[in-house]
Amino acid sequence: MSLLQCFSMKHGSLAVAVCSLLFCSVLLAAFDGPKFSAGDELSRPADYREWVFVSSGLGMTYNPVSTPNATPRFTNVFVNPSSYRAFMKNGRWPDKTMFVLEVRGSTSEGSINRGGSFQTDVVGVEAAVKDEARYPATKWAYFDFGHGPDAKDRVKALPASASCYACHAANTAVDNTFVQFYPALFDVARRLGTVKSTFAGH
Amino acid sequence: MSLLQCFSMKHGSLAVAVCSLLFCSVLLAAFDGPKFSAGDELSRPADYREWVFVSSGLGMTYNPVSTPNATPRFTNVFVNPSSYRAFMKNGRWPDKTMFVLEVRGSTSEGSINRGGSFQTDVVGVEAAVKDEARYPATKWAYFDFGHGPDAKDRVKALPASASCYACHAANTAVDNTFVQFYPALFDVARRLGTVKSTFAGH
Repeated sequence: MSLLQCFSMKHGSLAVAVCSLLFCSVLLAAFDGPKFSAGDELSRPADYREWVFVSSGLGMTYNPVSTPNATPRFTNVFVNPSSYRAFMKNGRWPDKTMFVLEVRGSTSEGSINRGGSFQTDVVGVEAAVKDEARYPATKWAYFDFGHGPDAKDRVKALPASASCYACHAANTAVDNTFVQFYPALFDVARRLGTVKSTFAGH
Repeated sequence: MSLLQCFSMKHGSLAVAVCSLLFCSVLLAAFDGPKFSAGDELSRPADYREWVFVSSGLGMTYNPVSTPNATPRFTNVFVNPSSYRAFMKNGRWPDKTMFVLEVRGSTSEGSINRGGSFQTDVVGVEAAVKDEARYPATKWAYFDFGHGPDAKDRVKALPASASCYACHAANTAVDNTFVQFYPALFDVARRLGTVKSTFAGH
Protein backbone atom coordinates (compact mmCIF):
# COMPACT_ATOMS: atom_id res chain seq x y z
CA MET A 1 0.00 0.00 0.00
CA SER A 2 1.43 3.35 -0.97
CA LEU A 3 1.56 6.44 1.21
CA LEU A 4 -0.96 8.14 -1.06
CA GLN A 5 -3.38 5.23 -0.88
CA CYS A 6 -3.03 5.08 2.88
CA PHE A 7 -3.66 8.79 3.27
CA SER A 8 -6.66 8.87 0.95
CA MET A 9 -8.26 5.81 2.57
CA LYS A 10 -8.23 7.54 5.94
CA HIS A 11 -9.34 10.98 4.81
CA GLY A 12 -11.68 10.40 1.89
CA SER A 13 -12.24 12.35 -1.27
CA LEU A 14 -10.81 15.70 -0.14
CA ALA A 15 -7.55 13.92 0.55
CA VAL A 16 -7.67 12.29 -2.88
CA ALA A 17 -7.96 15.73 -4.44
CA VAL A 18 -5.09 17.09 -2.34
CA CYS A 19 -2.93 14.09 -3.17
CA SER A 20 -3.71 14.39 -6.88
CA LEU A 21 -2.68 18.03 -6.80
CA LEU A 22 0.55 17.16 -5.02
CA PHE A 23 1.24 14.38 -7.51
CA CYS A 24 0.57 16.68 -10.47
CA SER A 25 2.90 19.31 -8.98
CA VAL A 26 5.66 16.73 -8.74
CA LEU A 27 5.10 15.69 -12.35
CA LEU A 28 5.09 19.30 -13.54
CA ALA A 29 8.24 20.09 -11.58
CA ALA A 30 9.94 17.06 -13.11
CA PHE A 31 9.35 18.23 -16.70
CA ASP A 32 12.20 20.65 -17.35
CA GLY A 33 12.03 20.82 -21.15
CA PRO A 34 10.50 23.31 -23.60
CA LYS A 35 7.18 24.94 -22.75
CA PHE A 36 4.96 26.06 -25.62
CA SER A 37 1.86 28.21 -25.58
CA ALA A 38 -1.14 27.53 -27.81
CA GLY A 39 0.24 29.43 -30.78
CA ASP A 40 3.42 27.33 -30.97
CA GLU A 41 5.29 30.04 -29.12
CA LEU A 42 8.22 28.85 -27.00
CA SER A 43 8.60 30.40 -23.53
CA ARG A 44 11.98 31.80 -22.51
CA PRO A 45 12.84 29.70 -19.42
CA ALA A 46 13.19 31.91 -16.36
CA ASP A 47 15.59 29.45 -14.77
CA TYR A 48 17.85 28.44 -17.65
CA ARG A 49 20.92 29.55 -15.73
CA GLU A 50 20.18 26.66 -13.33
CA TRP A 51 20.18 24.18 -16.22
CA VAL A 52 23.28 22.17 -16.99
CA PHE A 53 26.12 24.16 -18.56
CA VAL A 54 27.71 22.23 -21.39
CA SER A 55 30.46 24.64 -22.45
CA SER A 56 31.32 28.18 -23.47
CA GLY A 57 33.33 29.77 -26.24
CA LEU A 58 34.75 33.22 -26.88
CA GLY A 59 34.48 34.96 -30.24
CA MET A 60 33.71 31.72 -32.08
CA THR A 61 32.92 32.22 -35.75
CA TYR A 62 32.23 29.84 -38.59
CA ASN A 63 33.24 32.35 -41.26
CA PRO A 64 36.77 33.13 -42.46
CA VAL A 65 38.41 35.75 -40.24
CA SER A 66 40.09 38.73 -41.85
CA THR A 67 40.82 40.87 -38.78
CA PRO A 68 40.78 39.91 -35.11
CA ASN A 69 37.51 40.62 -33.32
CA ALA A 70 38.10 43.55 -30.96
CA THR A 71 34.90 42.87 -29.03
CA PRO A 72 34.47 39.10 -28.95
CA ARG A 73 31.42 37.60 -27.30
CA PHE A 74 31.14 34.74 -24.86
CA THR A 75 28.63 32.02 -25.74
CA ASN A 76 27.34 30.00 -22.77
CA VAL A 77 25.39 26.87 -23.66
CA PHE A 78 22.88 25.28 -21.27
CA VAL A 79 20.64 22.22 -21.68
CA ASN A 80 17.63 21.06 -19.66
CA PRO A 81 18.89 18.74 -16.88
CA SER A 82 16.86 15.61 -17.67
CA SER A 83 18.06 15.62 -21.29
CA TYR A 84 21.66 16.12 -20.13
CA ARG A 85 21.38 13.06 -17.87
CA ALA A 86 19.89 11.02 -20.71
CA PHE A 87 22.74 12.08 -23.01
CA MET A 88 25.42 11.15 -20.48
CA LYS A 89 23.87 7.66 -20.30
CA ASN A 90 23.31 6.88 -23.97
CA GLY A 91 24.90 9.66 -26.05
CA ARG A 92 21.60 10.70 -27.62
CA TRP A 93 19.20 13.60 -27.12
CA PRO A 94 15.67 12.56 -26.19
CA ASP A 95 12.67 14.26 -27.78
CA LYS A 96 11.83 17.53 -25.95
CA THR A 97 15.47 18.44 -25.44
CA MET A 98 16.06 22.19 -25.21
CA PHE A 99 19.29 24.16 -25.46
CA VAL A 100 19.70 27.80 -24.49
CA LEU A 101 22.54 29.84 -25.96
CA GLU A 102 23.31 32.86 -23.78
CA VAL A 103 25.50 35.44 -25.50
CA ARG A 104 27.44 37.89 -23.33
CA GLY A 105 29.88 40.68 -23.95
CA SER A 106 33.48 40.43 -22.77
CA THR A 107 36.06 42.70 -21.25
CA SER A 108 39.62 42.38 -20.11
CA GLU A 109 40.01 45.30 -17.76
CA GLY A 110 38.17 45.25 -14.47
CA SER A 111 38.91 44.79 -10.79
CA ILE A 112 42.30 43.07 -10.42
CA ASN A 113 42.18 41.39 -13.82
CA ARG A 114 45.07 42.30 -16.13
CA GLY A 115 44.73 40.00 -19.13
CA GLY A 116 42.38 37.65 -20.93
CA SER A 117 38.62 38.07 -20.88
CA PHE A 118 35.72 37.77 -18.50
CA GLN A 119 31.99 38.00 -19.12
CA THR A 120 29.78 41.09 -19.05
CA ASP A 121 26.12 41.77 -19.90
CA VAL A 122 23.77 39.49 -21.82
CA VAL A 123 23.51 40.54 -25.47
CA GLY A 124 21.40 37.69 -26.77
CA VAL A 125 19.39 34.61 -25.81
CA GLU A 126 18.65 31.93 -28.39
CA ALA A 127 17.32 28.38 -28.19
CA ALA A 128 17.16 25.06 -30.00
CA VAL A 129 14.38 22.53 -29.37
CA LYS A 130 13.99 18.94 -30.49
CA ASP A 131 10.29 18.17 -30.97
CA GLU A 132 9.65 15.62 -33.68
CA ALA A 133 5.84 15.90 -33.57
CA ARG A 134 5.74 19.69 -33.66
CA TYR A 135 8.48 20.05 -36.31
CA PRO A 136 8.22 16.84 -38.37
CA ALA A 137 10.29 18.10 -41.31
CA THR A 138 13.29 19.43 -39.36
CA LYS A 139 12.86 17.67 -35.98
CA TRP A 140 14.79 20.52 -34.37
CA ALA A 141 13.73 24.19 -34.40
CA TYR A 142 15.61 27.39 -33.60
CA PHE A 143 14.47 30.47 -31.69
CA ASP A 144 15.73 33.99 -31.05
CA PHE A 145 14.43 35.70 -27.90
CA GLY A 146 16.35 38.92 -28.60
CA HIS A 147 17.74 41.00 -25.75
CA GLY A 148 17.51 44.35 -24.03
CA PRO A 149 14.39 46.41 -24.77
CA ASP A 150 13.49 44.04 -27.64
CA ALA A 151 13.72 40.86 -25.55
CA LYS A 152 10.67 38.63 -25.82
CA ASP A 153 9.24 36.16 -23.30
CA ARG A 154 7.73 33.96 -26.02
CA VAL A 155 8.69 33.52 -29.67
CA LYS A 156 7.78 31.28 -32.57
CA ALA A 157 10.44 29.17 -34.27
CA LEU A 158 12.54 30.86 -36.92
CA PRO A 159 11.45 29.79 -40.43
CA ALA A 160 13.08 26.66 -41.80
CA SER A 161 14.81 28.87 -44.37
CA ALA A 162 16.91 30.49 -41.61
CA SER A 163 20.57 29.60 -41.97
CA CYS A 164 20.75 27.82 -38.59
CA TYR A 165 18.71 24.86 -39.88
CA ALA A 166 21.00 23.98 -42.77
CA CYS A 167 24.17 24.73 -40.78
CA HIS A 168 23.15 22.54 -37.83
CA ALA A 169 22.05 19.72 -40.13
CA ALA A 170 25.32 19.76 -42.07
CA ASN A 171 28.00 20.50 -39.49
CA THR A 172 27.04 19.04 -36.14
CA ALA A 173 28.66 15.98 -34.59
CA VAL A 174 25.59 14.48 -32.88
CA ASP A 175 21.93 14.88 -33.88
CA ASN A 176 21.92 18.55 -34.98
CA THR A 177 23.96 19.67 -31.95
CA PHE A 178 27.52 21.01 -31.89
CA VAL A 179 28.72 18.39 -29.42
CA GLN A 180 32.19 18.67 -30.98
CA PHE A 181 32.49 21.97 -29.06
CA TYR A 182 31.32 20.46 -25.71
CA PRO A 183 34.29 18.29 -24.71
CA ALA A 184 32.68 16.50 -21.73
CA LEU A 185 29.77 15.43 -23.96
CA PHE A 186 31.88 14.67 -27.03
CA ASP A 187 33.86 12.13 -24.98
CA VAL A 188 30.59 10.34 -24.15
CA ALA A 189 29.36 10.36 -27.76
CA ARG A 190 32.65 8.97 -29.05
CA ARG A 191 32.70 6.25 -26.40
CA LEU A 192 29.10 5.25 -27.14
CA GLY A 193 29.44 5.52 -30.92
CA THR A 194 26.71 8.11 -31.42
CA VAL A 195 28.78 10.59 -33.45
CA LYS A 196 27.32 10.91 -36.96
CA SER A 197 29.11 8.75 -39.52
CA THR A 198 29.19 11.81 -41.77
CA PHE A 199 31.05 13.92 -39.18
CA ALA A 200 34.75 14.37 -39.94
CA GLY A 201 36.74 12.89 -37.11
CA HIS A 202 33.96 10.63 -35.80
CA MET B 1 -1.50 14.40 10.29
CA SER B 2 1.37 13.89 7.88
CA LEU B 3 1.65 11.09 5.34
CA LEU B 4 4.54 9.61 7.29
CA GLN B 5 2.59 9.67 10.55
CA CYS B 6 -0.41 8.08 8.87
CA PHE B 7 1.68 5.35 7.30
CA SER B 8 3.57 4.51 10.45
CA MET B 9 0.42 4.45 12.60
CA LYS B 10 -1.07 1.80 10.35
CA HIS B 11 1.98 -0.39 9.91
CA GLY B 12 3.94 -0.14 13.14
CA SER B 13 7.64 -0.10 13.82
CA LEU B 14 8.85 -1.67 10.57
CA ALA B 15 7.11 1.13 8.70
CA VAL B 16 8.72 3.69 11.01
CA ALA B 17 12.12 2.29 10.11
CA VAL B 18 11.33 2.34 6.39
CA CYS B 19 9.99 5.87 6.59
CA SER B 20 13.03 7.04 8.55
CA LEU B 21 15.30 5.58 5.88
CA LEU B 22 13.31 7.31 3.13
CA PHE B 23 13.35 10.58 5.03
CA CYS B 24 17.12 10.33 5.59
CA SER B 25 17.63 9.61 1.87
CA VAL B 26 15.70 12.75 1.00
CA LEU B 27 17.76 14.80 3.44
CA LEU B 28 21.04 13.37 2.13
CA ALA B 29 20.01 14.03 -1.47
CA ALA B 30 19.13 17.59 -0.53
CA PHE B 31 22.60 18.35 0.88
CA ASP B 32 24.63 19.31 -2.16
CA GLY B 33 27.54 21.05 -0.44
CA PRO B 34 31.08 19.94 0.50
CA LYS B 35 31.64 16.39 1.71
CA PHE B 36 34.58 15.78 4.06
CA SER B 37 36.10 12.52 5.20
CA ALA B 38 37.37 11.98 8.72
CA GLY B 39 40.80 13.45 8.05
CA ASP B 40 39.43 16.80 6.90
CA GLU B 41 39.84 15.71 3.31
CA LEU B 42 37.39 17.24 0.82
CA SER B 43 35.88 14.91 -1.80
CA ARG B 44 35.98 15.94 -5.43
CA PRO B 45 32.26 16.06 -6.36
CA ALA B 46 31.52 13.56 -9.12
CA ASP B 47 28.61 15.67 -10.34
CA TYR B 48 29.97 19.20 -10.18
CA ARG B 49 29.21 19.73 -13.87
CA GLU B 50 25.52 19.50 -12.90
CA TRP B 51 25.98 22.28 -10.34
CA VAL B 52 25.06 25.86 -11.23
CA PHE B 53 27.47 27.53 -13.64
CA VAL B 54 28.20 31.09 -12.55
CA SER B 55 30.52 32.23 -15.33
CA SER B 56 33.65 31.49 -17.33
CA GLY B 57 36.70 33.43 -18.39
CA LEU B 58 39.46 32.91 -20.92
CA GLY B 59 43.12 33.57 -20.12
CA MET B 60 42.29 35.66 -17.07
CA THR B 61 45.34 36.77 -15.12
CA TYR B 62 45.82 38.99 -12.12
CA ASN B 63 49.45 39.75 -12.98
CA PRO B 64 50.74 42.36 -15.44
CA VAL B 65 50.82 40.97 -18.97
CA SER B 66 53.96 41.41 -21.04
CA THR B 67 53.16 39.19 -24.02
CA PRO B 68 49.82 37.75 -25.14
CA ASN B 69 49.11 34.25 -23.89
CA ALA B 70 49.35 31.90 -26.88
CA THR B 71 47.59 29.08 -25.04
CA PRO B 72 44.98 30.73 -22.81
CA ARG B 73 42.86 28.58 -20.54
CA PHE B 74 39.13 28.63 -19.95
CA THR B 75 38.01 28.79 -16.33
CA ASN B 76 34.50 27.46 -15.67
CA VAL B 77 33.09 28.24 -12.23
CA PHE B 78 30.32 26.13 -10.64
CA VAL B 79 28.62 26.44 -7.24
CA ASN B 80 26.44 23.96 -5.34
CA PRO B 81 22.79 24.59 -6.31
CA SER B 82 21.30 25.27 -2.86
CA SER B 83 23.93 27.94 -2.13
CA TYR B 84 23.29 29.53 -5.54
CA ARG B 85 19.57 29.77 -4.78
CA ALA B 86 20.33 31.29 -1.37
CA PHE B 87 22.64 33.86 -2.97
CA MET B 88 20.07 34.85 -5.58
CA LYS B 89 17.61 35.54 -2.74
CA ASN B 90 19.79 37.44 -0.30
CA GLY B 91 23.16 38.16 -1.95
CA ARG B 92 25.12 36.17 0.63
CA TRP B 93 26.79 32.76 0.68
CA PRO B 94 25.51 30.41 3.38
CA ASP B 95 27.92 28.31 5.41
CA LYS B 96 28.85 25.07 3.53
CA THR B 97 28.95 26.83 0.18
CA MET B 98 31.31 25.15 -2.28
CA PHE B 99 32.73 26.44 -5.56
CA VAL B 100 34.48 24.32 -8.17
CA LEU B 101 36.87 25.92 -10.64
CA GLU B 102 37.31 23.75 -13.72
CA VAL B 103 40.25 24.77 -15.88
CA ARG B 104 40.26 23.70 -19.53
CA GLY B 105 42.56 24.22 -22.48
CA SER B 106 41.40 26.18 -25.52
CA THR B 107 41.74 25.96 -29.26
CA SER B 108 40.58 27.97 -32.22
CA GLU B 109 40.82 25.51 -35.05
CA GLY B 110 38.43 22.57 -35.14
CA SER B 111 35.40 21.40 -37.07
CA ILE B 112 33.85 24.43 -38.84
CA ASN B 113 35.22 26.99 -36.38
CA ARG B 114 37.44 29.66 -37.94
CA GLY B 115 38.08 32.18 -35.17
CA GLY B 116 37.87 32.72 -31.45
CA SER B 117 38.25 29.92 -28.92
CA PHE B 118 36.39 26.88 -27.69
CA GLN B 119 37.12 24.56 -24.81
CA THR B 120 39.22 21.40 -24.81
CA ASP B 121 40.42 18.98 -22.09
CA VAL B 122 40.35 19.57 -18.35
CA VAL B 123 43.75 20.72 -17.08
CA GLY B 124 42.83 21.45 -13.47
CA VAL B 125 40.10 21.20 -10.85
CA GLU B 126 40.19 23.44 -7.78
CA ALA B 127 37.68 24.29 -5.06
CA ALA B 128 36.74 26.85 -2.43
CA VAL B 129 34.65 25.96 0.63
CA LYS B 130 33.03 28.15 3.26
CA ASP B 131 32.98 26.28 6.57
CA GLU B 132 33.25 28.56 9.56
CA ALA B 133 33.49 25.78 12.16
CA ARG B 134 36.13 23.78 10.31
CA TYR B 135 38.22 26.80 9.32
CA PRO B 136 37.57 29.35 12.08
CA ALA B 137 40.52 31.61 11.22
CA THR B 138 39.91 31.96 7.48
CA LYS B 139 36.23 30.85 7.19
CA TRP B 140 36.94 29.85 3.57
CA ALA B 141 39.49 27.24 2.50
CA TYR B 142 41.03 26.41 -0.89
CA PHE B 143 41.74 23.05 -2.48
CA ASP B 144 43.62 21.73 -5.52
CA PHE B 145 42.52 18.33 -6.84
CA GLY B 146 45.17 18.30 -9.59
CA HIS B 147 44.45 16.71 -12.95
CA GLY B 148 45.45 13.92 -15.29
CA PRO B 149 47.49 11.09 -13.73
CA ASP B 150 48.01 13.19 -10.58
CA ALA B 151 44.31 13.93 -10.03
CA LYS B 152 43.08 13.17 -6.53
CA ASP B 153 39.61 12.20 -5.32
CA ARG B 154 40.16 13.73 -1.87
CA VAL B 155 42.50 16.48 -0.73
CA LYS B 156 43.13 18.52 2.38
CA ALA B 157 42.87 22.30 2.27
CA LEU B 158 45.90 24.21 1.05
CA PRO B 159 47.77 25.84 3.96
CA ALA B 160 46.61 29.29 4.99
CA SER B 161 49.94 30.62 3.73
CA ALA B 162 48.93 29.78 0.12
CA SER B 163 48.49 32.92 -1.95
CA CYS B 164 44.80 32.25 -2.66
CA TYR B 165 43.80 33.05 0.93
CA ALA B 166 45.26 36.57 0.99
CA CYS B 167 44.20 37.32 -2.60
CA HIS B 168 40.59 36.26 -2.04
CA ALA B 169 40.40 38.17 1.23
CA ALA B 170 41.75 41.36 -0.31
CA ASN B 171 40.28 41.47 -3.82
CA THR B 172 36.85 39.86 -3.84
CA ALA B 173 33.58 41.77 -4.15
CA VAL B 174 31.41 39.60 -1.89
CA ASP B 175 32.52 37.39 1.02
CA ASN B 176 35.83 36.03 -0.36
CA THR B 177 34.32 35.29 -3.78
CA PHE B 178 35.06 36.99 -7.10
CA VAL B 179 31.44 37.90 -7.74
CA GLN B 180 32.67 40.91 -9.74
CA PHE B 181 33.49 38.39 -12.51
CA TYR B 182 30.05 36.68 -12.36
CA PRO B 183 27.75 39.31 -13.86
CA ALA B 184 24.40 37.64 -13.09
CA LEU B 185 25.39 37.37 -9.42
CA PHE B 186 27.06 40.77 -9.21
CA ASP B 187 23.78 42.39 -10.27
CA VAL B 188 22.06 40.69 -7.32
CA ALA B 189 24.75 41.70 -4.82
CA ARG B 190 24.64 45.33 -5.95
CA ARG B 191 20.86 45.42 -5.77
CA LEU B 192 20.82 43.88 -2.30
CA GLY B 193 23.77 45.91 -0.99
CA THR B 194 25.98 42.95 -0.10
CA VAL B 195 29.08 44.10 -1.99
CA LYS B 196 31.92 44.75 0.49
CA SER B 197 32.27 48.40 1.43
CA THR B 198 36.01 48.03 0.78
CA PHE B 199 35.47 46.86 -2.80
CA ALA B 200 36.20 49.51 -5.41
CA GLY B 201 33.04 50.16 -7.39
CA HIS B 202 30.62 48.84 -4.79
